[in-house]
Amino acid sequence: MRRPSAKLQQDRREEILEAARRCFARMGFHQTSMQQICLEARMSPGNLYRYFPSKEAIMAGIAERDRAEVGAELAKAQEAPDFFGTLEVLAQHHLVERSMDDVGLCAEMVAESRRNPTIGRIMRDFDVEVRTQLTAMLRAARERGDVSPDVNIDDVITTVILFADGVWWRRAVHPDFDPAPTVPIFMNIMRYMLLGTA
Amino acid sequence: MRRPSAKLQQDRREEILEAARRCFARMGFHQTSMQQICLEARMSPGNLYRYFPSKEAIMAGIAERDRAEVGAELAKAQEAPDFFGTLEVLAQHHLVERSMDDVGLCAEMVAESRRNPTIGRIMRDFDVEVRTQLTAMLRAARERGDVSPDVNIDDVITTVILFADGVWWRRAVHPDFDPAPTVPIFMNIMRYMLLGTA
Repeated sequence: MRRPSAKLQQDRREEILEAARRCFARMGFHQTSMQQICLEARMSPGNLYRYFPSKEAIMAGIAERDRAEVGAELAKAQEAPDFFGTLEVLAQHHLVERSMDDVGLCAEMVAESRRNPTIGRIMRDFDVEVRTQLTAMLRAARERGDVSPDVNIDDVITTVILFADGVWWRRAVHPDFDPAPTVPIFMNIMRYMLLGTA
Repeated sequence: MRRPSAKLQQDRREEILEAARRCFARMGFHQTSMQQICLEARMSPGNLYRYFPSKEAIMAGIAERDRAEVGAELAKAQEAPDFFGTLEVLAQHHLVERSMDDVGLCAEMVAESRRNPTIGRIMRDFDVEVRTQLTAMLRAARERGDVSPDVNIDDVITTVILFADGVWWRRAVHPDFDPAPTVPIFMNIMRYMLLGTA
């Protein structure tokens, strides 16, 4: 039997993660079986288990990919010359444009993280990454003079994370909740906290 | 067989709701069986089913009781002469003092509401109640001149709900998250939004 190429292996991994993401978001983490993920990914169980030994390993794979994406996105935002413009683009993306599958999957992970130490650790690692990147972004803005020199960076980041979590929770509970009006409210709070004015 | 008195029936209902709350918070809604709730409530299945026909009915009973409690608490707060003092007491209670069982149960309900229309409706009814009471509280404060006359009440309530949801989400994911420092951040944002100053 030929070993699949690294590229093919990577593609198959991606296909499994995408299939599992749809299943978890639709049916929930507990109610999804490895068999259902096989069906969704059009793959035999034997083949699936070569890539991932368990649902936890798949969930960890999804979270790791998300973490890398969000990390890269925030790292890129640190370079942007227009701080508040960049912040608004990030807010629009994460509060409004992220898919309902992403939101649903996150709600599953929150509920699951309370009982499952593996999922709990994934969620906490994700938070550390976001907090680190946001801290770097705000420090760079402070050095450029884009925000007030005496800004409390920790309080701002706590507010950003709480606000974003709140919007996702709302979207998870209310399928018809419109997150678009939360962006100007968020930006107004940010201008107040970062500049001391609205 | 004698029919139990109304008082006894009410007491038994309360015991079942408390037992189920502990089970749901600890094990999750799906992973809890009616049998486990019977064990926790020290009650026979036949007896339990006389009070509640299903787990959904029990969850609805828990939520209805919470809704009534929060509704009464907010209605009482409308009368308080010191608006910002009252708001801080409410914030301290809901952001910090509510139990980890309450937080865990809420995380379960959020995840479950996405697939279970009964739970979804309970969650939305709860929100309508909270929004109605907060609107009355803010309008009364505006009439008394405790807050700025041109305050955007809808934006303030959206922020209150998002912030509180965000804190609960954080508490659900991070058992060691300390919510106490979120109260001054919240009050600062409120003073800014309600008075136009911090």
